[in-house]
Amino acid sequence: MGTQIPPSTAREPIRCKAAVCREAGAPLVMEEVMVAPPRAHEARIRIVCTSLCQSDINLWKRKDFPGITPRILGHEAIGIVESVGAEVTEFSEGDTVIPVFLSDCGECSGCRSKKSNLCSKFPFKVSPWMPRDDTSRFTDLDGNTIYHFLSVSSFSEYTVVDVAHLTKIDPDGIQMSSACLLSCGVSTGVGAAWRTADVEEGSTVAIFGLGSVGLAVAEGARIRGAARIIGVDMKPEKFEIGKKFGITEFVNPADCGDKPLSQVINEMTEGGADYCFECVGLPSLMEEAYACCQKGWGKTVVLGVARPMSEMKLQCFDVLRSGKILTGSLFGGLKPKSDIPILLKHSIDKDLQLDKFVTHELDFKEINTAFDLLIEGKSLRCVMWMDR
Amino acid sequence: MGTQIPPSTAREPIRCKAAVCREAGAPLVMEEVMVAPPRAHEARIRIVCTSLCQSDINLWKRKDFPGITPRILGHEAIGIVESVGAEVTEFSEGDTVIPVFLSDCGECSGCRSKKSNLCSKFPFKVSPWMPRDDTSRFTDLDGNTIYHFLSVSSFSEYTVVDVAHLTKIDPDGIQMSSACLLSCGVSTGVGAAWRTADVEEGSTVAIFGLGSVGLAVAEGARIRGAARIIGVDMKPEKFEIGKKFGITEFVNPADCGDKPLSQVINEMTEGGADYCFECVGLPSLMEEAYACCQKGWGKTVVLGVARPMSEMKLQCFDVLRSGKILTGSLFGGLKPKSDIPILLKHSIDKDLQLDKFVTHELDFKEINTAFDLLIEGKSLRCVMWMDR
Repeated sequence: MGTQIPPSTAREPIRCKAAVCREAGAPLVMEEVMVAPPRAHEARIRIVCTSLCQSDINLWKRKDFPGITPRILGHEAIGIVESVGAEVTEFSEGDTVIPVFLSDCGECSGCRSKKSNLCSKFPFKVSPWMPRDDTSRFTDLDGNTIYHFLSVSSFSEYTVVDVAHLTKIDPDGIQMSSACLLSCGVSTGVGAAWRTADVEEGSTVAIFGLGSVGLAVAEGARIRGAARIIGVDMKPEKFEIGKKFGITEFVNPADCGDKPLSQVINEMTEGGADYCFECVGLPSLMEEAYACCQKGWGKTVVLGVARPMSEMKLQCFDVLRSGKILTGSLFGGLKPKSDIPILLKHSIDKDLQLDKFVTHELDFKEINTAFDLLIEGKSLRCVMWMDR
Repeated sequence: MGTQIPPSTAREPIRCKAAVCREAGAPLVMEEVMVAPPRAHEARIRIVCTSLCQSDINLWKRKDFPGITPRILGHEAIGIVESVGAEVTEFSEGDTVIPVFLSDCGECSGCRSKKSNLCSKFPFKVSPWMPRDDTSRFTDLDGNTIYHFLSVSSFSEYTVVDVAHLTKIDPDGIQMSSACLLSCGVSTGVGAAWRTADVEEGSTVAIFGLGSVGLAVAEGARIRGAARIIGVDMKPEKFEIGKKFGITEFVNPADCGDKPLSQVINEMTEGGADYCFECVGLPSLMEEAYACCQKGWGKTVVLGVARPMSEMKLQCFDVLRSGKILTGSLFGGLKPKSDIPILLKHSIDKDLQLDKFVTHELDFKEINTAFDLLIEGKSLRCVMWMDR
């Protein structure tokens, strides 16, 4: 007898509520959709709660590709496996799972490398489809296709996710609303500090942009024992918020007068920060971050998503003689399946304080309010509960 | 009694032969010069042999700053301490020393850091002076100042060098003509492979520009056990030369047709080289190198000296999502005083084969022939002996 392949445990589509982006930039439409059964290597998930990330806003606004409608956005979530497709052995009904936009197939050279978290089997792209067969599992009640987002599409009571994009976690002792944040933003920031930059005790860190990702970098740097964590933001109120995450000093570019921001930080730090993190996505800010990281060993990590085709410029002679390192990372350089449980353990142990990021909790049906709160800069993470 | 400071062992200027750059781009003039006694923290060195590096040519050609005349060029050499200035305890008369353009004061944060080889006490600059007091030790026979170059000025029978720019070596078992090369070019290439990039066994390396620095990168990568070493150069004859240094494959950009060079290398390597080294100094080539290093972990190291103010451009989104690392290094990331003896040991043990780089040996008085040979691409390293 050959290997027994588990059959699909689901036969029927599920009819449920989803918040559909029907027009770029317009309020999401709460409607009923059909969620097809999972195919091979897929699981259908009941979303428990989902939170809103800046990337949802960015793609929601976009009229041109990779913006597309109708689409179910959302990619930061936690859920329970409802059913699995054929050939799925890693998950079964009832498992608690965290979906992630980044694949972790476990087999390709990227997934097998200790140095990388970039899967080459399902490379990162902002596709409207499921990753394995470029089809959708969502339709509206008239049978028209609704597109996926970042392989997750969590703004729906049920969604279908490829197993390469799912991490199983032990639900014992976790808070669902906190664990949900490990699905994207907080993992990205903490991972960037721990894995991509490898921040050391006693070091000086500068963070450009104090949204959730920037504050998660601060949280990661704080836990690592950074001596100075300089936060940079245009909004003065961010300093008080930042203090809770370990920010020790604050620079508002608007207060720098004639001095370039990098010069101000170079002077504060006597030659630059050991680690700089750009969390906004502006080429000029990436250049400023590079300009104020320490010669000889300073590392600049790009986390902000810039506009397509935008370029940053570096003086070639500076690259040569400064010895500085420029890099970037998706999902903070973390491998979802092995690293999310580690971050979760830090959260259970209370050194990684996830609940500080949750500024709002809403019912799923109030999702457009969550959009308003993030756009107006009033929230860090707004968690939406599906069952309320 | 307080600490005894050794007095200067030299009282008088030395009259000797030097090859003086009196006009940018014109043949050097062999003339007699006066070399003042060493001041505090300095040593006067009798140069045994010196070799010619591309940076000598570049600065010799420059009419504008940091080009300056009259100047004594030369910065790759080996010599014997003739006398020392006050407060010098590390060196004494008769010591064999290698001067290096990069300072190693041993005290500043850069020198004390394990991660850096950039001295912040005497930061790298192309100055016409001695580093500590911005004065010159050279005059012509009419008493007019002659300028220094890179804190070394080895195109002279005698020169004065700050102790921070000197490394003492054990002369037992060494070949002077080989050890001389550790003063700049070969150390830069081997160091870049070993220290800056940390090339691993089995990895794929691409080297852009097969001059001495590029070939020294290959030699370093070969010793580390790189599986594939791809050499890129416009001169087809470089491939045969490169084979001796471990180059396994050769790409001539002129033969790439309509394909960008980076695409050719991406195809050869199924996604890029693990390590790319730019050894020419062209912004477009730095961009190509970055474009064909492996996503997830690929490291691009800039070693080529670009024109002042020239910029390289990177797509911001590529920096974010590729996880690639861009860096550069001076002197291959090596700390002269501690690392040159290590490279010398590898040379004595015959795994680092320095003699392969010495294509020509000339008398010092034939220095303009050495310039012609390097400009015409006929030499790798031409060693000039002062006493012949």
